[in-house]
Amino acid sequence: MKKIGVFGTGTVGKTIASKLIALGYEVKMGARSADNEKAAAWVKSSGDKASQGTFTDAAAFGDIVFNCTKGDISQDVIKLAAGNLEGKILIDISNPLDFSNGMPPTLIPALCNSNSLGEALQELLPGTHVVKTLNIVTSDVMVDAARCGGEATMLMAGNNAAAKKEVEAILRQFGWSDIIDLGNIRHARSTEMMLPVWLSVYLLNNNAFFGFKIVRP
Amino acid sequence: MKKIGVFGTGTVGKTIASKLIALGYEVKMGARSADNEKAAAWVKSSGDKASQGTFTDAAAFGDIVFNCTKGDISQDVIKLAAGNLEGKILIDISNPLDFSNGMPPTLIPALCNSNSLGEALQELLPGTHVVKTLNIVTSDVMVDAARCGGEATMLMAGNNAAAKKEVEAILRQFGWSDIIDLGNIRHARSTEMMLPVWLSVYLLNNNAFFGFKIVRP
Repeated sequence: MKKIGVFGTGTVGKTIASKLIALGYEVKMGARSADNEKAAAWVKSSGDKASQGTFTDAAAFGDIVFNCTKGDISQDVIKLAAGNLEGKILIDISNPLDFSNGMPPTLIPALCNSNSLGEALQELLPGTHVVKTLNIVTSDVMVDAARCGGEATMLMAGNNAAAKKEVEAILRQFGWSDIIDLGNIRHARSTEMMLPVWLSVYLLNNNAFFGFKIVRP
Repeated sequence: MKKIGVFGTGTVGKTIASKLIALGYEVKMGARSADNEKAAAWVKSSGDKASQGTFTDAAAFGDIVFNCTKGDISQDVIKLAAGNLEGKILIDISNPLDFSNGMPPTLIPALCNSNSLGEALQELLPGTHVVKTLNIVTSDVMVDAARCGGEATMLMAGNNAAAKKEVEAILRQFGWSDIIDLGNIRHARSTEMMLPVWLSVYLLNNNAFFGFKIVRP
């Protein structure tokens, strides 16, 4: 079974990492420091297939790496670990949210409309297969698709077909059955730009348990 | 029955105007010139409830006005007709598409992320009730919701609750039953920013007949 690195120790990182452990993967959670306290707490509660390390350690460990860091620091994190990501799959599930103008957040202007976080990470990592997906739902729905209350669609984008096949297999393990491959990594901007409507729907009832279905014949 | 003005003589304007005629409304199609040839052809084929005029004429005629002009000229058109829109409902179904960087289009930067066409029109028309809706599907689906191949969701945004009730009644006449009111006109940016993902899905098969369902419990 493939080994997986998870960048990020927040709610999203922990949710992804715990689901992967439940599925039987070995998982190393990466942070800036090798002894990050949140990662240590997660390891302690997650059994012997769970471990922690720096971002660099997690990248070296994983055949596949999930980027679950906040979108405004993802590029810095990726630069730290780039040397160990060559030839691997990076699943980017983050969004370039900009909280500097208050709530609800907008998108970071330099990563919106004519660019995206997914594209920026691919540019930093020419030898890595970046696949953008899962960023259009809350983390509990990412790993258990039915929790949106019905059958929603999961979108993905990336330049490498074989890498997307591997990611699709993980999405199916997370409960997604309606998966649309939008094409190359340029389409990452399309899914990231769904964040504003996600926020608008979320704010109606402060309820994050929903998803988007592409209704077609 | 209320009278309706339709700004724009392109495919979207004609599709909306013809549906309104079929529903029994009187409709005046507005253009820059009172004798616009495309509007004249539409009037000729649409019976005695159809008429044409300038944007100013159509605004004066309508209790409700649809903005179906291209997003990059909508603000100029609205300025021409502003004097006759006071106290009325403007249903803005356009998107601020920017074709200057080739295909697929992006959004006009000044009308994206921290602003939107819907918000810009509301700012130009402080005495008008701007309601943003229908802009997330192709025009044939706008007026016949089932043509997306299932039950999709229609989103709307605007500052005035009574105006949104009137718009909702028209949406129901267009076949929409799952309608979500996102809140004030600020949320127009959320629906306009769905255009990139609409384009990504469209480009998969060059098929515009689809919609977005908000899947929730």
